[in-house]
Amino acid sequence: MTATAIDSAIFRDIFSTEAMRRVFCDESRVQYYLDVEAALARVQARLGIIPAEAAEEICRHCSAGEYDLAALKRQTERIGYPVLPVVQQLVALCRDGLGEWSHWGATTQDITDTATVLQIRDALALVEEEIVAICESLAELARRYRDTPMAGRSNLQQAVPITFGYKMAVLLAGFQRHRERLAQLRPRVLVGELGGAAGTLASLGADGLRVQEALMAELGLGQPVIAWHTMRDCFAEVGCFLGLVTGTAAKIATDVKLMMQTEVEEAFEPFAEGRGSSSTMPQKRNPISSNYIIACTSMVRQNVAALLDAMVEDHERATGPWEIEWIAMPEIFLLSAGALAQTRSLVAGLQVDAQRMRSNLDLTRGLIVSEAVMMGLSPALGRQRAHDLVYDVCRKVIVSGRPFLDLLALEPEITRHLDREALAHLVDPANYLGLSGEMVDRVLRYGSRPMPVDSY
Amino acid sequence: MTATAIDSAIFRDIFSTEAMRRVFCDESRVQYYLDVEAALARVQARLGIIPAEAAEEICRHCSAGEYDLAALKRQTERIGYPVLPVVQQLVALCRDGLGEWSHWGATTQDITDTATVLQIRDALALVEEEIVAICESLAELARRYRDTPMAGRSNLQQAVPITFGYKMAVLLAGFQRHRERLAQLRPRVLVGELGGAAGTLASLGADGLRVQEALMAELGLGQPVIAWHTMRDCFAEVGCFLGLVTGTAAKIATDVKLMMQTEVEEAFEPFAEGRGSSSTMPQKRNPISSNYIIACTSMVRQNVAALLDAMVEDHERATGPWEIEWIAMPEIFLLSAGALAQTRSLVAGLQVDAQRMRSNLDLTRGLIVSEAVMMGLSPALGRQRAHDLVYDVCRKVIVSGRPFLDLLALEPEITRHLDREALAHLVDPANYLGLSGEMVDRVLRYGSRPMPVDSY
Amino acid sequence: MTATAIDSAIFRDIFSTEAMRRVFCDESRVQYYLDVEAALARVQARLGIIPAEAAEEICRHCSAGEYDLAALKRQTERIGYPVLPVVQQLVALCRDGLGEWSHWGATTQDITDTATVLQIRDALALVEEEIVAICESLAELARRYRDTPMAGRSNLQQAVPITFGYKMAVLLAGFQRHRERLAQLRPRVLVGELGGAAGTLASLGADGLRVQEALMAELGLGQPVIAWHTMRDCFAEVGCFLGLVTGTAAKIATDVKLMMQTEVEEAFEPFAEGRGSSSTMPQKRNPISSNYIIACTSMVRQNVAALLDAMVEDHERATGPWEIEWIAMPEIFLLSAGALAQTRSLVAGLQVDAQRMRSNLDLTRGLIVSEAVMMGLSPALGRQRAHDLVYDVCRKVIVSGRPFLDLLALEPEITRHLDREALAHLVDPANYLGLSGEMVDRVLRYGSRPMPVDSY
Amino acid sequence: MTATAIDSAIFRDIFSTEAMRRVFCDESRVQYYLDVEAALARVQARLGIIPAEAAEEICRHCSAGEYDLAALKRQTERIGYPVLPVVQQLVALCRDGLGEWSHWGATTQDITDTATVLQIRDALALVEEEIVAICESLAELARRYRDTPMAGRSNLQQAVPITFGYKMAVLLAGFQRHRERLAQLRPRVLVGELGGAAGTLASLGADGLRVQEALMAELGLGQPVIAWHTMRDCFAEVGCFLGLVTGTAAKIATDVKLMMQTEVEEAFEPFAEGRGSSSTMPQKRNPISSNYIIACTSMVRQNVAALLDAMVEDHERATGPWEIEWIAMPEIFLLSAGALAQTRSLVAGLQVDAQRMRSNLDLTRGLIVSEAVMMGLSPALGRQRAHDLVYDVCRKVIVSGRPFLDLLALEPEITRHLDREALAHLVDPANYLGLSGEMVDRVLRYGSRPMPVDSY
Repeated sequence: MTATAIDSAIFRDIFSTEAMRRVFCDESRVQYYLDVEAALARVQARLGIIPAEAAEEICRHCSAGEYDLAALKRQTERIGYPVLPVVQQLVALCRDGLGEWSHWGATTQDITDTATVLQIRDALALVEEEIVAICESLAELARRYRDTPMAGRSNLQQAVPITFGYKMAVLLAGFQRHRERLAQLRPRVLVGELGGAAGTLASLGADGLRVQEALMAELGLGQPVIAWHTMRDCFAEVGCFLGLVTGTAAKIATDVKLMMQTEVEEAFEPFAEGRGSSSTMPQKRNPISSNYIIACTSMVRQNVAALLDAMVEDHERATGPWEIEWIAMPEIFLLSAGALAQTRSLVAGLQVDAQRMRSNLDLTRGLIVSEAVMMGLSPALGRQRAHDLVYDVCRKVIVSGRPFLDLLALEPEITRHLDREALAHLVDPANYLGLSGEMVDRVLRYGSRPMPVDSY
Repeated sequence: MTATAIDSAIFRDIFSTEAMRRVFCDESRVQYYLDVEAALARVQARLGIIPAEAAEEICRHCSAGEYDLAALKRQTERIGYPVLPVVQQLVALCRDGLGEWSHWGATTQDITDTATVLQIRDALALVEEEIVAICESLAELARRYRDTPMAGRSNLQQAVPITFGYKMAVLLAGFQRHRERLAQLRPRVLVGELGGAAGTLASLGADGLRVQEALMAELGLGQPVIAWHTMRDCFAEVGCFLGLVTGTAAKIATDVKLMMQTEVEEAFEPFAEGRGSSSTMPQKRNPISSNYIIACTSMVRQNVAALLDAMVEDHERATGPWEIEWIAMPEIFLLSAGALAQTRSLVAGLQVDAQRMRSNLDLTRGLIVSEAVMMGLSPALGRQRAHDLVYDVCRKVIVSGRPFLDLLALEPEITRHLDREALAHLVDPANYLGLSGEMVDRVLRYGSRPMPVDSY
Repeated sequence: MTATAIDSAIFRDIFSTEAMRRVFCDESRVQYYLDVEAALARVQARLGIIPAEAAEEICRHCSAGEYDLAALKRQTERIGYPVLPVVQQLVALCRDGLGEWSHWGATTQDITDTATVLQIRDALALVEEEIVAICESLAELARRYRDTPMAGRSNLQQAVPITFGYKMAVLLAGFQRHRERLAQLRPRVLVGELGGAAGTLASLGADGLRVQEALMAELGLGQPVIAWHTMRDCFAEVGCFLGLVTGTAAKIATDVKLMMQTEVEEAFEPFAEGRGSSSTMPQKRNPISSNYIIACTSMVRQNVAALLDAMVEDHERATGPWEIEWIAMPEIFLLSAGALAQTRSLVAGLQVDAQRMRSNLDLTRGLIVSEAVMMGLSPALGRQRAHDLVYDVCRKVIVSGRPFLDLLALEPEITRHLDREALAHLVDPANYLGLSGEMVDRVLRYGSRPMPVDSY
Repeated sequence: MTATAIDSAIFRDIFSTEAMRRVFCDESRVQYYLDVEAALARVQARLGIIPAEAAEEICRHCSAGEYDLAALKRQTERIGYPVLPVVQQLVALCRDGLGEWSHWGATTQDITDTATVLQIRDALALVEEEIVAICESLAELARRYRDTPMAGRSNLQQAVPITFGYKMAVLLAGFQRHRERLAQLRPRVLVGELGGAAGTLASLGADGLRVQEALMAELGLGQPVIAWHTMRDCFAEVGCFLGLVTGTAAKIATDVKLMMQTEVEEAFEPFAEGRGSSSTMPQKRNPISSNYIIACTSMVRQNVAALLDAMVEDHERATGPWEIEWIAMPEIFLLSAGALAQTRSLVAGLQVDAQRMRSNLDLTRGLIVSEAVMMGLSPALGRQRAHDLVYDVCRKVIVSGRPFLDLLALEPEITRHLDREALAHLVDPANYLGLSGEMVDRVLRYGSRPMPVDSY
């Protein structure tokens, strides 16, 4: 029986993914603990701190499958933390008391934090995979529609023309920045913890730093400069990163749901039989993935605040704030995975109606390129005069419903400078795309790679 | 395999409760849907809108156990919402096409919203049960320790004496207000939904309001004045209520963890063998429940923001915000249940060390009652002069480490008005408890009942 | 020099209002403090606790205008709280040391909390005024457009027809509920504070409760059952209420900005010369008020989380959380005032294009009433068969672009039951408005009054 | 009249700083706009796009002091954005219509975004200054108290000894990471905007990219790869960074307020006459700065969520979300400045009572080094046996109140391996400081410099 939407037998692949669940499920968590315990035993044996025989026996029993989860649950409720119960089972599994050499000099939070870092490492790899795939699809869309005109919109009003490829390239640039962020935070975040009760390594005497160094090398993690049991900036930073990435996903979803509107119909989520259909309104095609992305992102955002809240820790081991992470860290990754998987399939299969984009450009009877006319007249009339004149013609278009071109051609102050042919050229939206194409090319240079900072 | 902390096989009874999970699990959700569908069929048969035979057949197949959750998952992913797939299975389960009379005139969100209201009803009953139990324990503590002196603390500094019963009564008054809030919001929130695609009941023709009224009566819910498919103030209000209730729980937890400090040791979470023990520090007694309460509450707080976010819905059925509720509503109840269950057991078994409370009162060598002396001198010297004089003596106590009483007795300006005996009476903390006891009695008058507004 | 958007000389009347600023400005805050001090002196003189002469002198100097704000700033920075510095100035202003009878038995937080409650009282009155005005405009719109057909939209797709009056009535019902919430919370929240250092009234001896009762009566506030210095549920509740109210405002703004889209153009913010115009795109009409409402509401939502955070207070006077309220409480009211003032003017001057609403209804060539046809055929064919058949015709309409009516008339299974005339009646959106009008009437019965709970 | 706490004449230097207010005040904002307009005119003249004479005249009138803020307010309210009104005043100020060459090809948001980036640049410089100062003080404390023993605490329980220098070094490492984060985000964030209405530079024709490049060089900002009008990841990233930095500040404040407790008294905020004193309790010394830091940080955290919310923007210019930034971006910097300024003065003047730290270490009668004894016995007895044995002795210490050493010396299983002298050495906290000193040295190597990623 599961009760959250994320673990729901019905919704679990909507709001998250199998791969991400695997990173954070109970079995995996226990396995990550045991991976750390095994690595610790191995390096301590290598350094002559514990007997080689003990390390061997310990490592032999570091498979989560051997562990009794029901007993683990009971003990965790009693003690408050799951690590000691796991160690107790490990000790019991080992012959001849050799298991007592396990967990040597470590404290509960050393194991928990290091295991969480391993989870973060694996979870970030999944996140990166989705980002790369999204980048590839966006790059493909940007390339394919590099020169496909559509209305650029500001304040939900048609503003000036853009190309659909340009719209996609803007999004792509955001994900390229996210890749760069990820590259920068990884070495800072993927740092293990081994410090003992208050982080001083007192329990390991003079060997402490050597053990710590060897353990982190064994696990492929960075060595901490000093304990971070109650300095949670790196964990909160991971949350912030996911907040930023899903924020961009929700921006995409917002644009897609707006483009799918009955009155717009320029782009659509991938079609699948029955997808987004209504029980009573057969004509509808709902932006289902967009809905999910927006919902997951809102929840991710709240979890960022929770992880920032968890930074306010007391002394050398926190009293409450740490447990916020226990809930928020899995959840923020699980929901981010959901948002990104939905985004990935959305952009991979996005259906684009270039014809409708073109016809929507004509909805304003030419007004969408009023700026082009204004800029075209400015050298002759001055910007303010050109603006006022064009503004007046626009008002007439709105009131009369007649085409912009026709009314422009009636103004002697205008036709003195531009004849009807010149005006007709100005009011064709396809002639006012600016540098849409060049900008697409600028972004495509980075493909799905991180955008290096010196590119700016 | 579960991945959230709330559904974790290890943590599930730490961060939530079995009873609350039962309300929000998949099987229950489907059953709530079916309860609504069955009730709808029954009242529509009664009103002659669908055949009685159809209603009977439909009701016969409204047990969640009959439904194929795996198929439901697949269909939900395809369509985006689980109600139509449930109805399709219902139709298939019914003989002779009678199932086609099910869901008559309803829309997906009618069923979902009404089912969610039924979940909220049952979940609020669980919340109330915990609040009542917490109130009873707090009342018992307030009564028992009505006159037990301890240090009142402001800014984490000992300020003036209070009694432990008074401290508990302050908390109790908060929960009494929560009960009143719950009583007020229930009739507003426990209102069903039946409106059809855009809430106008068009699909039911002239019968619409009669069906709606009968359905709500059948389900024991209020009838809406008008559809609320995209007016989510009542759902957000439920979230706010839980934010308020858990906020008080976290206040209790904060006080308990502070009182459990090594340097304070005035009260303790209930003792259980091994509870809160450390793998390496046998002397410790960790405030485990307090930790969990604080963590759950932080997460609840974020979910309140999510539910408020979900209010910003578009048109007649929202595009994204609604799905926020799918995640946040179960989660906020599940975590609130965890916080309240931990609070309940914490206050039920709270261990109080009245002797230590008394001895901590002496830590300031009498300074904690400096206000008593100041107030005692004020009538004779004026408030400001009394303040300045006593302030100076306090500084001498701090510097010299000598008892307040001794240094007071050295000041002629003081002894002119109060002799040593009078001063000794003033500096006994047990003589400066104010109306602690009377205030306990004022609060106890309401016991665990809602505090009526006119009581103020 | 001001630096926040709320106090900005440019933006202040966009994001807040003059009236609300007046409640929370420095001069007013000092005056509220002095109002409490004056009332305290008056009742203590009346009860014979301080000399009548002192009370008179104190009250004579309780006008904020007499106070030196620059000195107050310096002293507040030194001491950490502004009340003691105010009292020191008050003492200095009074002749013959009579001012030393001021603040008798009170503590800093007594004055601050009570003054804040007075601010909340006045601020809630302003909020209520806006809500009433919004209700009146919504009621007027609901009445005027009770029978004006438009597309109901779900998932941003045209779903089934509604009336514009119905849309307004749904919103109105939300504000009626807000009025009821306000009525319920007022007596709970408008309760003063007078308890002395730890709330026990020790400083006032046996007179404490009499003074407390008289003070609250004097101020028109409720008397607390017990101190609430660190029980902040009522303040957080006020925040939640504002979160709910602005949530509804943002829902309105969302609908308006969507209706103003170039491709929709069904309703518009009030026109004012130049309002929402662009520097370069003369054709645009930006939903300026809607933008502001949405932005203010997002910030209000975050302040709700802050006020819930502030509930987690320690012991008898909190160490940090209380100061959250100092920032968040003014801000949440100021921003709510901005959101509501913008909403008020938006709904008061909303421009409605009923003709465009009607023509947009035809965009789907009849598909928007596919449900009507489906329901019309269901009695004869069964719901599922009717659904499948109509669904197929819908798909043909989408592919071919031909009118729904024409294609329906080609299906023998359909025409067997309904002739073209019957079908034509079914596909006229104006014939499928359901109970829109009746529901408008149901809501209008409450006008701008609170919706009583037993109305449901 | 100001109404927010941040701009309050009383509180403004508590919750923010003069320097940060100067960056975000109205005059500065207008000046930043004019700086961008002037730079644009200069580079366009240089590139031959506008007349040199126009650029000269424009630059001559780009001082905010010349502008009428009252008129600007009125126009901003009318139009919705302040840039066009500023440009209109600029045009009016210039002779002979030369001002019409200003703002050439730019859109409102180009100027606003670029101005905001300039504000962020200057505000981040202020933030960095505070971080450096905090680092220096923490480094000094770490150095000075490198070997000063105190109790390390986990779960607010004394756990094992640490040194106060070690505690400070842990904090310092966090700020070193913040410096590295700042160095990484700067080149990504300090990128200007110039794209015209939809970002395509259509209004500047073929010259667009040259103008853009030259403008950014002129302003010392990076050139964007493509427009980011609705891709707000970099602004949200700035918010996240401030959330992280203040999170660490609040961690410091939490430790300080706990250390200042009457029952602990190990460290204190800097003393200043009257600072943190109470109107009625002369013995108190309130952790005033800590309170403010905690409050500011809570608000900063909420503003992070707001800035993430603002990422969900629509199309090419957002409808509502952008305005969230107008409120949140100044506020998050202003409050961060307040938190950091308080932190800076707190750590610069922190008072440390090394003697009390030492005596608090004896509170548990030796139990705080039970781990030392356990680890000392483990090689002989095995970890589990040692743990169980020591745990039992600890319980006896707690029950009997007798010293740990005495009771250890009574256990034959223990004394068989360790004599009283050896035990006495083990139970001296000063002998169980682990690598506290070495770790301090590791951190001090980086001083107040950014911690490079390859240091880990």
